[in-house]
Amino acid sequence: MAMEKSRVLIVGGTGYIGRRIVAASLAAGHPTSVLLRPEIGLDIDKLQILLAFKAQGARLLEASLDDHDGLVAAIRQVDVVVSAMSGAHIRSHNLMLQIKLVEAIKQAGNIKRFLPSEFGMDPSRLGNALEPGRVTFDEKMEIRRAIENANIPHTYVSANCFAAYFSPNLCQLKTLLPPKERVGVYGDGNVKVFFVDEDDVGTYTIKSIDDPRTLNKTIYIRPQDNCLTQNELIAMWEKLSGKSLTKFHIHGDEFLASMKDTDFAHQVGVTHFYHIFYEGCLTNFDIGDNGAEATLLYPDVQYTRINEVLKRYL
Amino acid sequence: MAMEKSRVLIVGGTGYIGRRIVAASLAAGHPTSVLLRPEIGLDIDKLQILLAFKAQGARLLEASLDDHDGLVAAIRQVDVVVSAMSGAHIRSHNLMLQIKLVEAIKQAGNIKRFLPSEFGMDPSRLGNALEPGRVTFDEKMEIRRAIENANIPHTYVSANCFAAYFSPNLCQLKTLLPPKERVGVYGDGNVKVFFVDEDDVGTYTIKSIDDPRTLNKTIYIRPQDNCLTQNELIAMWEKLSGKSLTKFHIHGDEFLASMKDTDFAHQVGVTHFYHIFYEGCLTNFDIGDNGAEATLLYPDVQYTRINEVLKRYL
Repeated sequence: MAMEKSRVLIVGGTGYIGRRIVAASLAAGHPTSVLLRPEIGLDIDKLQILLAFKAQGARLLEASLDDHDGLVAAIRQVDVVVSAMSGAHIRSHNLMLQIKLVEAIKQAGNIKRFLPSEFGMDPSRLGNALEPGRVTFDEKMEIRRAIENANIPHTYVSANCFAAYFSPNLCQLKTLLPPKERVGVYGDGNVKVFFVDEDDVGTYTIKSIDDPRTLNKTIYIRPQDNCLTQNELIAMWEKLSGKSLTKFHIHGDEFLASMKDTDFAHQVGVTHFYHIFYEGCLTNFDIGDNGAEATLLYPDVQYTRINEVLKRYL
Repeated sequence: MAMEKSRVLIVGGTGYIGRRIVAASLAAGHPTSVLLRPEIGLDIDKLQILLAFKAQGARLLEASLDDHDGLVAAIRQVDVVVSAMSGAHIRSHNLMLQIKLVEAIKQAGNIKRFLPSEFGMDPSRLGNALEPGRVTFDEKMEIRRAIENANIPHTYVSANCFAAYFSPNLCQLKTLLPPKERVGVYGDGNVKVFFVDEDDVGTYTIKSIDDPRTLNKTIYIRPQDNCLTQNELIAMWEKLSGKSLTKFHIHGDEFLASMKDTDFAHQVGVTHFYHIFYEGCLTNFDIGDNGAEATLLYPDVQYTRINEVLKRYL
């Protein structure tokens, strides 16, 4: 007998990663609910994303994170909760609101798996992260502690560099578009990075929720074909576009100094980029027994190659 | 021989109405370009809307409204320009930026039709509009004067009440969701209003761009089946939902007084609602010779009935 598919509730389902997790959950045939927060107000774009999911078979569960009883009632109707509340300072940063979600899950008592909003670098390996970007990791670790103290079964997803944010711009900050003339290279440009297509983040996340192999572990999405240095990425784009770019190298100290007198969101970005492109924090460790690698767990997933991502921008 | 379809450039193509105009232009087989402004910055949602259009065959033309020569060069590659830059204060309000667009169209000299961002009430009939909401109409009239002074062939689209903003909430301000218990009724609730599905706004807009009958005129979208009073709308929802709502009537003076000490965007909304629901400004005039009615011009379009819109929210 086939295992019944868990009923999933996605919190933050209108967001950048959340809407992909909803799509993946629907595609995988899970009974899928999405939290509709009354705080949506006059945000017609978010509401229409929710209505589009409803038209595809999702159920909209209405509750505020400030309404504990309503939240508990919503959670009691599902088996798995996935949170994709934003922690990106260039968008919004609501990670700590998840404490209310953890409290509601704890009281509901029925949740078989909770996935908090992670989807980036592994915060447990960034205890010595630089200010001010460390706020992201500190907050994620605080949520992890709340989850673990409440004995809530969980999975953490480390999704590395989102492809659309990091690859077409050849890892440049402040833009999402391919550079036309010049490209800044971090150090020698030879640090290995994993780029992951955002739709694939949704797919692997949903694959993991009913999987005993991912229970109380971190899954790392490490598509081998998308393990590239910045130099390799630049060369890929130059080949595709048929144009050569002028490279200028940026020393680590110079890069960190560039955040002076910039806004907070940019400073956060600079420190995160430093850990990724100078320190190699995505690839300088072995996964070990507390983790698992998504492409090995789910080899049937045909993940998107960065070459294909870049072609969209030609 | 069939008339060749005009090449269309949409400005504001990632916006709420703009993206529907792009979709309609592609669906109608027009060679379709969308302006990609470098000001897009790190707005990945907008960028991915543009990339989705590109994948469907649209061309992305890159230029800033602050780059006159670049804008002229882009405009010279098309026949028709449609602007859908936002004028809604609850979103953004960029209407006056269109002066730069008008200047570029004037210099380019090749544009057969320009449709500025209108899509609401007819500003030429709101010369006595209340403060502060009159800013919307004053700005639209200033753009119209610039267009007409430059002898640019044009069409203005008056699209009345956008269905998703006005109908599921039963015309309540501050929410887009159906009321659950009580609903405020403006005056006696018997003023007639036209509700228009947003996708239909896109369809009728694109239908008009190559039509000699709409040259230098205003088209009014008046779907007869969607001409409803607030009372009729409330009754439609009560029938669909099977639930009766408590009605409370709001006198006109009381409604206007409610904007005191609220934010600017809300004040604008209150005055617009006043003109629509107390003064009946959408239906208290005959179109006359300077206008045309969209559903009569294009009877082949199967417009969306409000009943269908409401069902999405059940």
